[in-house]
Amino acid sequence: MEFTEIDYSVADGVATIVLDREARMNAFTGRMCDELVSACDAIDADDAVRALVITGRGRAFCAGADLGGGGSTFDARGREKAERYGEVNGVGRDRGGVVALRFAALTVPVIAAINGPAVGVGATMTLPMDVRIAGASARFGFVFARRGIVPEAASSWFLPRVVGISQAMEWAMTGRVFGAREAHEGRLVSKVVPDEDLLDTAYALAREVAENTSAVSVAVTRQMMWSMLSASSPWEAHALDSRAIVELGRDGDAAEGVTAFLEKRAPEFPLRRTRDHTDLVPRWPQRP
Amino acid sequence: MEFTEIDYSVADGVATIVLDREARMNAFTGRMCDELVSACDAIDADDAVRALVITGRGRAFCAGADLGGGGSTFDARGREKAERYGEVNGVGRDRGGVVALRFAALTVPVIAAINGPAVGVGATMTLPMDVRIAGASARFGFVFARRGIVPEAASSWFLPRVVGISQAMEWAMTGRVFGAREAHEGRLVSKVVPDEDLLDTAYALAREVAENTSAVSVAVTRQMMWSMLSASSPWEAHALDSRAIVELGRDGDAAEGVTAFLEKRAPEFPLRRTRDHTDLVPRWPQRP
Amino acid sequence: MEFTEIDYSVADGVATIVLDREARMNAFTGRMCDELVSACDAIDADDAVRALVITGRGRAFCAGADLGGGGSTFDARGREKAERYGEVNGVGRDRGGVVALRFAALTVPVIAAINGPAVGVGATMTLPMDVRIAGASARFGFVFARRGIVPEAASSWFLPRVVGISQAMEWAMTGRVFGAREAHEGRLVSKVVPDEDLLDTAYALAREVAENTSAVSVAVTRQMMWSMLSASSPWEAHALDSRAIVELGRDGDAAEGVTAFLEKRAPEFPLRRTRDHTDLVPRWPQRP
Repeated sequence: MEFTEIDYSVADGVATIVLDREARMNAFTGRMCDELVSACDAIDADDAVRALVITGRGRAFCAGADLGGGGSTFDARGREKAERYGEVNGVGRDRGGVVALRFAALTVPVIAAINGPAVGVGATMTLPMDVRIAGASARFGFVFARRGIVPEAASSWFLPRVVGISQAMEWAMTGRVFGAREAHEGRLVSKVVPDEDLLDTAYALAREVAENTSAVSVAVTRQMMWSMLSASSPWEAHALDSRAIVELGRDGDAAEGVTAFLEKRAPEFPLRRTRDHTDLVPRWPQRP
Repeated sequence: MEFTEIDYSVADGVATIVLDREARMNAFTGRMCDELVSACDAIDADDAVRALVITGRGRAFCAGADLGGGGSTFDARGREKAERYGEVNGVGRDRGGVVALRFAALTVPVIAAINGPAVGVGATMTLPMDVRIAGASARFGFVFARRGIVPEAASSWFLPRVVGISQAMEWAMTGRVFGAREAHEGRLVSKVVPDEDLLDTAYALAREVAENTSAVSVAVTRQMMWSMLSASSPWEAHALDSRAIVELGRDGDAAEGVTAFLEKRAPEFPLRRTRDHTDLVPRWPQRP
Repeated sequence: MEFTEIDYSVADGVATIVLDREARMNAFTGRMCDELVSACDAIDADDAVRALVITGRGRAFCAGADLGGGGSTFDARGREKAERYGEVNGVGRDRGGVVALRFAALTVPVIAAINGPAVGVGATMTLPMDVRIAGASARFGFVFARRGIVPEAASSWFLPRVVGISQAMEWAMTGRVFGAREAHEGRLVSKVVPDEDLLDTAYALAREVAENTSAVSVAVTRQMMWSMLSASSPWEAHALDSRAIVELGRDGDAAEGVTAFLEKRAPEFPLRRTRDHTDLVPRWPQRP
């Protein structure tokens, strides 16, 4: 699909998505949802991509849902249902959740370079991302209680698992907007850097993945970690990783990984994540 | 019911419970349990209350179970069963658990202003509270292993989810009593303030909730977050919040929340948490 | 069994395991696995042991799987199956998982004194331990993606529960080796101390357990906390601890614990963890 609300590009093994509605502070729309899902589909089909960096155009990351509809913004009556994604629980799916769960199912790691306000769905869509880095100008808000709604994008599941239940409750109960330092102290972001260093920091991390790791190992590991967050006991993980080690262990990436380490050289892994070991972990669906 | 071991009051949208057995360092009793449950019932029935602050009278928060029974303190033989709350697992219910689970089911956020020793059930009863703030004099102890018993008040479930499994294990294995700074580093309390600023800090947070948020949004969000801690996957959260956004989105609080934000004024939310959307989330029982 | 790859000793109520293949940086082998399991069995049968300290001989803690097999290190074909532990999911059990789950099932707390590199299984085997203390020379790495395999030792379950999902993802996605300071900031270790203070710090903590706590309380609490991490709700914990308080409360340790506290003297607990209340919590299996 043609992208009009995001910008998508790939270079040096790293994909970049720029949320691209600068005049509206990159506010989230149904169209932006569709484009993000489509970009994720492109990434999952492209072995040249080893990591994804996502950031916002201009001074904001994403100001949240576009409030152009005023007081009826969240009133779905009379609106077309989001048939593209089907229904759940008798209603059209929350588009924030469609995006968040698509990021969770991605086969490459996602690094959020948060360059400015990330509020509402602009904050919650980042929770399934692997790393959130804040520029000094970043601001965050789980503002749902101030808008008369509730946390969306499955954030009632993700947020307590990212920052702990008490920090999640405090941010959700007050709905306050807070800065990069509070986000870091509360473990919402892994580091805070000067604005001018933000993208360099994000790309350095993406390249660290691209240059040193097996794409198949990364894809399977990412699926395992999300799945095991919901596992009933560590014995599920033991059953899963016992089999994964046997299957990957006799394959080319394991041989190359150990050999390259012993020879103190960069590895050249032969396997492809679009083709090899794609069924080791029961996948989270790409469409919820 | 008449309160003799706690003090209960409401002002400016905020309820206050003072644990009030100063001569016994506010030690916990069966009577105090009943009064706390009764106060929670009053709060859930009163739309004028938007948040709860709980603190201790005098120099202690709560020194734990009253040890007036000496070596037979924890021996339930020959004692009347706690019939008010029924049985579980063939025995009378642990009163610490009755209180903790009642706080967890409350429809307003709870802020603990911990002014001194919070030991045993004095510590565990605070775990389901949304925010714990420590005065510099606060001390904490999960001392059960030093008393020959085990963590109660469902704290083997709550503590690892509040502070992480390793910190929970260290505090439970040693049973040590520790100060406000260790509590803060271990993420048991969100901040440490001078004793004289403790209540002001707690009330400022309570007013932040009361003045800016929808009571219904807060009540539903609180229920969602606790429920989703036990959810098998984020798709449960997606199903729940998709429906919640649709139902709340077409209602008065969502219209007022967005309109007030766009008009840069304080919101006046029309919905009432005792009446509206009380069935959106399958409720945790008020009586376990 | 006779130990050739670990050193096992007991003194003053504390067991010590030294990973003892100094010439190979204490790299992990099938034999080391068997010896660790055997040492754990000895500890569980010996009431004289109240805590376990584990460290590495020489400059390393454990450099990971022994890579002496070169590129075929992880290729299990043609190798004898690990029949000692049976199969899971159609394959021989991952030995890292056998060790990690054995530590998780232990009836005494485990303190890791990490004196140098702890990489691969050298890092993941420590995740079910109660406390990890790093010497300044400690280094850590969840390097599986760099070797073309995936996290083992059930670490896809343990790691997110120890450090949070985002920190777990960052370390697993990059496979980077990092120092003690990053480990502390990321909450993988509870503290960093000078190398020369490492063992003293670990033994001080072990003695704090041994001198102050009931062995039965510690054993049951440890089982409760792990079990409740997988519980569907806090009501499971409430049912479990209500019964545990009643059973332990009428027994000698509870009487002694309260009496000693009131008399301000060291407790002398009469119960034995090998004999008393061993069935209160459905045990995690000692063999997975």
